[in-house]
Amino acid sequence: MSLIVQKFGGSSVADAESIKRVAKRIVDTRKAGNEVVVAVSAMGDSTDELLDLAHQVTPIPAPRELDMLLTAGERISMALLAMAIKSMGYDARSFTGSQAGMITDAQHGAARIVDVTPGRIRDALDEGAVAIVAGFQGFNRDTKDITTLGRGGSDTTAVALAAALNADICEIYTDVDGVFTADPRVVPRAHKLDRISSEEMLELAAAGAKVLYIRAVEYARRHGVTLHVRSSFNNNVGTIVYNPDTTSPHVAIPNSSATERTHPNNASANGETVEEPIIAGVAADLSEAKITVVGVPDIPGKAAQIFKIVAKTNANVDMIVQNVSAASTGLTDISFTLPKSEGQQVLTALTNEQANVGFAGLQYDDQIGKLALVGAGMRTNTGVSAKLFEALFEAGINIEMISTSEIRISVVTRADTINQALRVVHTAFGLDSTNDAVVHGGTGR
Amino acid sequence: MSLIVQKFGGSSVADAESIKRVAKRIVDTRKAGNEVVVAVSAMGDSTDELLDLAHQVTPIPAPRELDMLLTAGERISMALLAMAIKSMGYDARSFTGSQAGMITDAQHGAARIVDVTPGRIRDALDEGAVAIVAGFQGFNRDTKDITTLGRGGSDTTAVALAAALNADICEIYTDVDGVFTADPRVVPRAHKLDRISSEEMLELAAAGAKVLYIRAVEYARRHGVTLHVRSSFNNNVGTIVYNPDTTSPHVAIPNSSATERTHPNNASANGETVEEPIIAGVAADLSEAKITVVGVPDIPGKAAQIFKIVAKTNANVDMIVQNVSAASTGLTDISFTLPKSEGQQVLTALTNEQANVGFAGLQYDDQIGKLALVGAGMRTNTGVSAKLFEALFEAGINIEMISTSEIRISVVTRADTINQALRVVHTAFGLDSTNDAVVHGGTGR
Repeated sequence: MSLIVQKFGGSSVADAESIKRVAKRIVDTRKAGNEVVVAVSAMGDSTDELLDLAHQVTPIPAPRELDMLLTAGERISMALLAMAIKSMGYDARSFTGSQAGMITDAQHGAARIVDVTPGRIRDALDEGAVAIVAGFQGFNRDTKDITTLGRGGSDTTAVALAAALNADICEIYTDVDGVFTADPRVVPRAHKLDRISSEEMLELAAAGAKVLYIRAVEYARRHGVTLHVRSSFNNNVGTIVYNPDTTSPHVAIPNSSATERTHPNNASANGETVEEPIIAGVAADLSEAKITVVGVPDIPGKAAQIFKIVAKTNANVDMIVQNVSAASTGLTDISFTLPKSEGQQVLTALTNEQANVGFAGLQYDDQIGKLALVGAGMRTNTGVSAKLFEALFEAGINIEMISTSEIRISVVTRADTINQALRVVHTAFGLDSTNDAVVHGGTGR
Repeated sequence: MSLIVQKFGGSSVADAESIKRVAKRIVDTRKAGNEVVVAVSAMGDSTDELLDLAHQVTPIPAPRELDMLLTAGERISMALLAMAIKSMGYDARSFTGSQAGMITDAQHGAARIVDVTPGRIRDALDEGAVAIVAGFQGFNRDTKDITTLGRGGSDTTAVALAAALNADICEIYTDVDGVFTADPRVVPRAHKLDRISSEEMLELAAAGAKVLYIRAVEYARRHGVTLHVRSSFNNNVGTIVYNPDTTSPHVAIPNSSATERTHPNNASANGETVEEPIIAGVAADLSEAKITVVGVPDIPGKAAQIFKIVAKTNANVDMIVQNVSAASTGLTDISFTLPKSEGQQVLTALTNEQANVGFAGLQYDDQIGKLALVGAGMRTNTGVSAKLFEALFEAGINIEMISTSEIRISVVTRADTINQALRVVHTAFGLDSTNDAVVHGGTGR
């Protein structure tokens, strides 16, 4: 008997009909002889509706009360889902985050999981019931208050339960068929990956792939949870996100015939057969802006001084590039990217310290796009960056910044060239499928 | 410093604007130097909407899951109310039934309170916060499951908290000015009572007065809680429901100048001054039907046999009348009233046992109306029933059944004469006010 954790997002449980369809899917999994734990999000847009209501009452809702409010959303979906399953003749019980033992810190709105004590879930399973757990929510032991995990919280709930219950697999149901080599809405020839390592998935998620939340992938990687990202609209095998470092015997992949990653043109393009293909995928991100600190005196400690000011604003700096100093002036430029939403406060903080640091000025640019090429294979393959730059050059796309890690190369281009960039890079690395991808709509969540 | 429990129903918190208005009212009470605990219902029709959703999923929702679902309603209203209060600069914390220590039995949908352990509420008050508690909901210690208290549950929550916290008063906010001598929509000259004993209130509620739920009045009476039924639309003093047996020093009535009950014509009509007026009010109930068991052999044990059959259906029998046996036949008729919704099952149960009991037939009549005259004063005042019967006779209204208790006389008439009956009885007992009552609409809930 396998223990399977399944996560269904808001669009999968948007109305009574969808809930019944999801219930049937859960019952099918139970019928096949598995123990099933389900993490479920609030119905459709109900979380946003509750947020609207809160803002009608007060522009800045108290965080504790906002969490109390928002957790009503999953309470509704989980109870409806449990009663739907029971009406199909299978036992089911719904549990709040608190009842399921999701213990968090006290940071309302963005709580971190500190412990998972799923005693009641284990009991429910032992008694033959399906356990339906409210995603997104937790409980702080000290304050005894309800908390929420923030964006992507339901993914994290599912992964945390899978880890604590030693589940065989954690299935993340979504409205696309799995993880793709690129966003199929931009790159029609993108193809679904059968497997991807958690490390690569992490880089893709960080680079803007929206199919999984980075936090859930991190949790899965740290706790050796195997993920199966698949569509709630069909029974196809989706994408397995596996942990290369984990040799735990409980990692069983349901359909081994589907766990080989097939890159149509990969072997011929590189003239070799590798255990892991070089490139897992390409992702694009239009949510960032670039700040350039112009005319910084090229003396030791200046960069540290600048980023200390930036850090005080709690901004999430991504790429950092420093130009070679012009020998004639003794001045240099430092550019970095960060989420657009954080741009204004960083500009203000830097302006306030301009005299102290002694730079000439600031440039702000929110028309950038970031493209990231991710693949564990590039560690041992030379020429990946050269091929990337060449593909972009041939397409007439200018590269403004470059940053690399062991398994990722990121470049910044103009925002309006990012989709073209995605397509030419996808083609250059032999990722194109022979067929166009089927897209069910939605944002991949 | 007084401790005041305030209960606000769904219509008082139907939208963001109403919630802000209620929050202001709570803040005013807090500002006046009181400790405040609030029991709140779900917003407007949201409980019915959740019920609809459940029935879209399955015709017979699992009771545990239905309770889980419905309790989302108060979770939303209480969180919004708490954030509204906080936005006005006063501390407030919302608590679920479980967090507030409302311990119940495990009967989902109609749980009974077995204990109230409001430790967290007391702590919140001690720290200067207003405590907002979800009405209607509780928690079973054995199953660790969420329960609901059934109809009128929020009134009961408020009263139970007031008892457990030894509150000075429990204010029940509603959309009418208080408890009236009769339903003001039917009897325009009905007037608000300044005071009524819990015993009389119980009889009025049982007789169909909808301003308070019988269960909450019972709880208040048993635990010596003084109620103040008042309008959420103005600051007028409403009706005090007091416990004559309770001399507990904590019973303090906020505005003593308003605690005298003034019956305009009472003293003169009866030629005496009494501490308690004779009649508190008149109520009507159109929700019942009458079953007559015709041709019952007039031998000992037959009535017991019949009501044993009825009891097995769990029907709530109200009035029972047995005709004098006709000497010539040795047969008698037995009539009783019960909620219309329970009529069919009782008819079926009796029909199945007709041969055993040996009665001739059954008559079912759902066109009856019940009028009840309530007043502690009638204990020591003769002539009350005579005056009642005379008033109805003069109006040409036929009485079909009569039943009396120490402080109540109930009569059954045709349903279509009940409103006229209410008015003539109201007038006959000198209850008419000189002005028409102001009605805010709604059903008094």
